[in-house]
Amino acid sequence: MTADKGEFKRDQNYLPDRITADGRDGWPVEPGRYRLVIARACPWANRASIVRRLLGLEDVLSMGICGPTHDQRSWTFDLDPGGRDPVLGIERLQEAFFKRDPQYPRGITVPAIVDVPTGKVVTNDFKQMTLDLSLEWRAYHREGAPDLYPEPLRDEIDDVADKVFHDVNNGVYKAGFAGTQEAYEKAYNALFARLDWLTERLANQRFLVGDTITEADVRLFTTLVRFDAVYHGHFKCNRQKLTEMPVLWAYTRDLFQTPGFGDTIDFDQVKEHYYVVHRSINPTGVIPAGPDLSGWLTPHGREELGGRPFGDGTPPAPPIEGERVPSLAA
Amino acid sequence: MTADKGEFKRDQNYLPDRITADGRDGWPVEPGRYRLVIARACPWANRASIVRRLLGLEDVLSMGICGPTHDQRSWTFDLDPGGRDPVLGIERLQEAFFKRDPQYPRGITVPAIVDVPTGKVVTNDFKQMTLDLSLEWRAYHREGAPDLYPEPLRDEIDDVADKVFHDVNNGVYKAGFAGTQEAYEKAYNALFARLDWLTERLANQRFLVGDTITEADVRLFTTLVRFDAVYHGHFKCNRQKLTEMPVLWAYTRDLFQTPGFGDTIDFDQVKEHYYVVHRSINPTGVIPAGPDLSGWLTPHGREELGGRPFGDGTPPAPPIEGERVPSLAA
Repeated sequence: MTADKGEFKRDQNYLPDRITADGRDGWPVEPGRYRLVIARACPWANRASIVRRLLGLEDVLSMGICGPTHDQRSWTFDLDPGGRDPVLGIERLQEAFFKRDPQYPRGITVPAIVDVPTGKVVTNDFKQMTLDLSLEWRAYHREGAPDLYPEPLRDEIDDVADKVFHDVNNGVYKAGFAGTQEAYEKAYNALFARLDWLTERLANQRFLVGDTITEADVRLFTTLVRFDAVYHGHFKCNRQKLTEMPVLWAYTRDLFQTPGFGDTIDFDQVKEHYYVVHRSINPTGVIPAGPDLSGWLTPHGREELGGRPFGDGTPPAPPIEGERVPSLAA
Repeated sequence: MTADKGEFKRDQNYLPDRITADGRDGWPVEPGRYRLVIARACPWANRASIVRRLLGLEDVLSMGICGPTHDQRSWTFDLDPGGRDPVLGIERLQEAFFKRDPQYPRGITVPAIVDVPTGKVVTNDFKQMTLDLSLEWRAYHREGAPDLYPEPLRDEIDDVADKVFHDVNNGVYKAGFAGTQEAYEKAYNALFARLDWLTERLANQRFLVGDTITEADVRLFTTLVRFDAVYHGHFKCNRQKLTEMPVLWAYTRDLFQTPGFGDTIDFDQVKEHYYVVHRSINPTGVIPAGPDLSGWLTPHGREELGGRPFGDGTPPAPPIEGERVPSLAA
């Protein structure tokens, strides 16, 4: 990130290689060859962990999970025995970036997909990554996998996702890391104007585009699910809590209760990440004990709007051993 | 304040003199002689500004208003023309403390009552101050003034106020200024346990003690009214917002809509104070634009519980010229 006039600017230069069915960048889709590295805390990585679940790619694309906090240099595998990823054999994700480029100059980010044989990061481009899981890995999707990026709806999905990216996904960061009152208020106003727009859109339709879950829902979900736990207080996005915006709250609960979404969320890791890592806005590193999470499993009533969550497909099976998050059910 | 094991400790040594009807400390009650100095932002000062309004003491005890922010040394009269209190003729409240004691070693706090002829602070003991306004200034109360500290209920009022002080009024500060996770969680748990206790108490009775407004209500109100604007986010008191605790939210709205309470509240000054002054927990000084305040004037339904807000008395008249706060009514 870079700062200018007090505004938060996200460095959007990522390793641009793609893993494709035809292997044109030198990285062909191949079961068992790659490892997706995420952190439960991170909303950008969360997109990939959700899409991997929805498409049933667990057996062909393994997943490494970094701990919720990191230092200035790197995400680390501190949750693993010995602090080392059991497949890649590394302690710090940085090592895989340096294997790819010993001079790698930019941020060590998740999600990243690593080529297991060489230990090199192939890509950390989170926007392209989930689309490629849908389009390039299709031969390995589970039976009943949904089409998250259906051809006739792509323009609309891209359009909605672009608005959501600027005002919501990245918008909360622009509010939270604003260095001036003016930059903050600009981000805050754009965020809540967009949430009002989304409320209107979702008042009478169950999902963002079409009548099934798409990539657009995945992208909005990862920010909304973190809203009250971190963005409301820590990033000062506090016109209302998500729980006070009835349409968006029901929409997010609907997805949360759908297999593949809520089962990727670890609220404790989410809170620990933001409140411990961002000392510039939370110098004490104290992590809030709230909010009360008991509402997440309450009925949402969105079935009444119709919609077919998985289209002609089916929900994914429960998470595999080693990838389960703590349940909210008491 | 002092820190020990990461716990916030409030310095509770105040200038102990009292202004009494018999003048036994050398400071007899006398109309026009004293000036109450407050800041709209401060919850401790807010007690005094509410009680003064309820008892109709505006004409006998004038009021000076410091701005929402202050530096390390003092509250200042930066809202007044030329940055100078028009009655005391000083720019910094510190000057009145130093007139009283040139070596005054402790914090320059509001509320303070200043003897106008000598310019000396008489007392800044906020706990005794409001009781003395009720008991010692009785000869000058308006017609219809309520009895905020009725003799038969004093033990109960003291008991409730003591619990509320430790867990709520001061409890939010203990949570917000905790230097360790442990100290924070101790304060957070005590706070919300007490709020649950208060919810139970107020579910079926309109006011905290007896069937009329008392000192106990004034003391609880000044913290609850600031809850969502500052304590929820800034101090991490975030199990729920006040707006998500229906009994306490209705109770606080009831008082807010009662003359003498809401007409002392300036939410912008409240937010500016906490977010600008406490750089140790908000380094950027950016002030949140939320929360949405539109709910404060909505019906609360508490009349159904009975109760006689002013007992045999009457509500106070509107605030006098020069003491009006911005209205929430659009």
